[in-house]
Amino acid sequence: MTDYTLYYWPIAFRGQFVRSVLAHVGATWDETDFNAIRALKSKSPAEQPVPHMGPPVLTDHAAALSFSQMPAILHYLGKKHGLMEDDPASEAMTVKIVADANDVLYEITLYNGAQMWTGESWRDFVPRLERWMAMFEETGRRHGMTAEAGYLLGTDKPGIADLATCSLWGTMTEKLPSLRPLLEKAAPAIAGLCDRIAALPEQAELRARSDAEYGELYCAGQIEASLRKVLSA
Amino acid sequence: MTDYTLYYWPIAFRGQFVRSVLAHVGATWDETDFNAIRALKSKSPAEQPVPHMGPPVLTDHAAALSFSQMPAILHYLGKKHGLMEDDPASEAMTVKIVADANDVLYEITLYNGAQMWTGESWRDFVPRLERWMAMFEETGRRHGMTAEAGYLLGTDKPGIADLATCSLWGTMTEKLPSLRPLLEKAAPAIAGLCDRIAALPEQAELRARSDAEYGELYCAGQIEASLRKVLSA
Repeated sequence: MTDYTLYYWPIAFRGQFVRSVLAHVGATWDETDFNAIRALKSKSPAEQPVPHMGPPVLTDHAAALSFSQMPAILHYLGKKHGLMEDDPASEAMTVKIVADANDVLYEITLYNGAQMWTGESWRDFVPRLERWMAMFEETGRRHGMTAEAGYLLGTDKPGIADLATCSLWGTMTEKLPSLRPLLEKAAPAIAGLCDRIAALPEQAELRARSDAEYGELYCAGQIEASLRKVLSA
Repeated sequence: MTDYTLYYWPIAFRGQFVRSVLAHVGATWDETDFNAIRALKSKSPAEQPVPHMGPPVLTDHAAALSFSQMPAILHYLGKKHGLMEDDPASEAMTVKIVADANDVLYEITLYNGAQMWTGESWRDFVPRLERWMAMFEETGRRHGMTAEAGYLLGTDKPGIADLATCSLWGTMTEKLPSLRPLLEKAAPAIAGLCDRIAALPEQAELRARSDAEYGELYCAGQIEASLRKVLSA
């Protein structure tokens, strides 16, 4: 039996945050296909393993528990596998960083594709994207992180905050490489952190597998098409 | 010296989630005016007490710590003041419920006013709003909560999940009373929970004070105007 089942679309985006942590702790998991996720999402809350509006959903088979909401799934895995400091302040900072990451995912997809990017709206957004990057950079800086070494919250090993940061900025700049110079300029230490996390054997193996399965897809759909269009302009 | 300073606009909305918890634990806090919040939000991340994109921000004066992101602020207060069960599963469920609440706030304001409601878009949204309500109801039902008694996660006293649920659905249906019948139909036990929480002396006192200060304002701005317009149609 595998340890977990992850329900998420066959793309990186929010799902990669969960996969990255599962890979880091050496857990085994399976995933389902597009139709199974759509069917699960369409059930009434009473019929769902956990009442949810959309994926990701993670089931822990041994514990017979399911969670939705990427931040909650990361929290569960982080607590269970010792990837968060246990004091209220550090834990809340991890929650804050994951919430920031989730907001960036909303914003770069114009809220899951509620609108499409235009040249003008993208130009207006770039300074805000740089500010998000600078916020992560400043958080790392306050905890002594440099481009060469250290983790985001000053711990001595990568935790949820680091893995989520790499899932956000690392994945974004891998899939949309024209954004990498922006990250290097606005957040050089975060760019370094992303590289160090990505080089961990479990993460390198995950990335190779994900690239083989999902190709260059980032968030998918019309919103990805509109994003690639403004980026290539 | 007061225990905390809360930076949030003079409206209920996301800020009420924080005020509700502060009132529940008997903390003292002060708030700043509109201009101070705007000035803080506009500073570079390096100059901010915690790097953030917008309020709420909470400063704990004794600990000399600041947090942004409503879910992170609630997490900090919840851990510090013993308002969350300490096992990974219960804690992650609290994170999930707060993340769901935050998503509902995004959706009912069309992502902080990125678009405006029309009669048509609101009609399309109502079944989704009912589904959000039903998700909360089902969560309570699984933990034995009824319209008459119990808390959302089956604990014996109100925790962060209960306070956040009341801040979401209670505040929304107080400020936009035409939505109360929807809540009573889709989530009768949640409507009961909101009433029980609202009747706690600290919450009743907070509500009286908030009503005196903010009046009937919910999320404010053009988006509130468009929301009230579709609701009165």
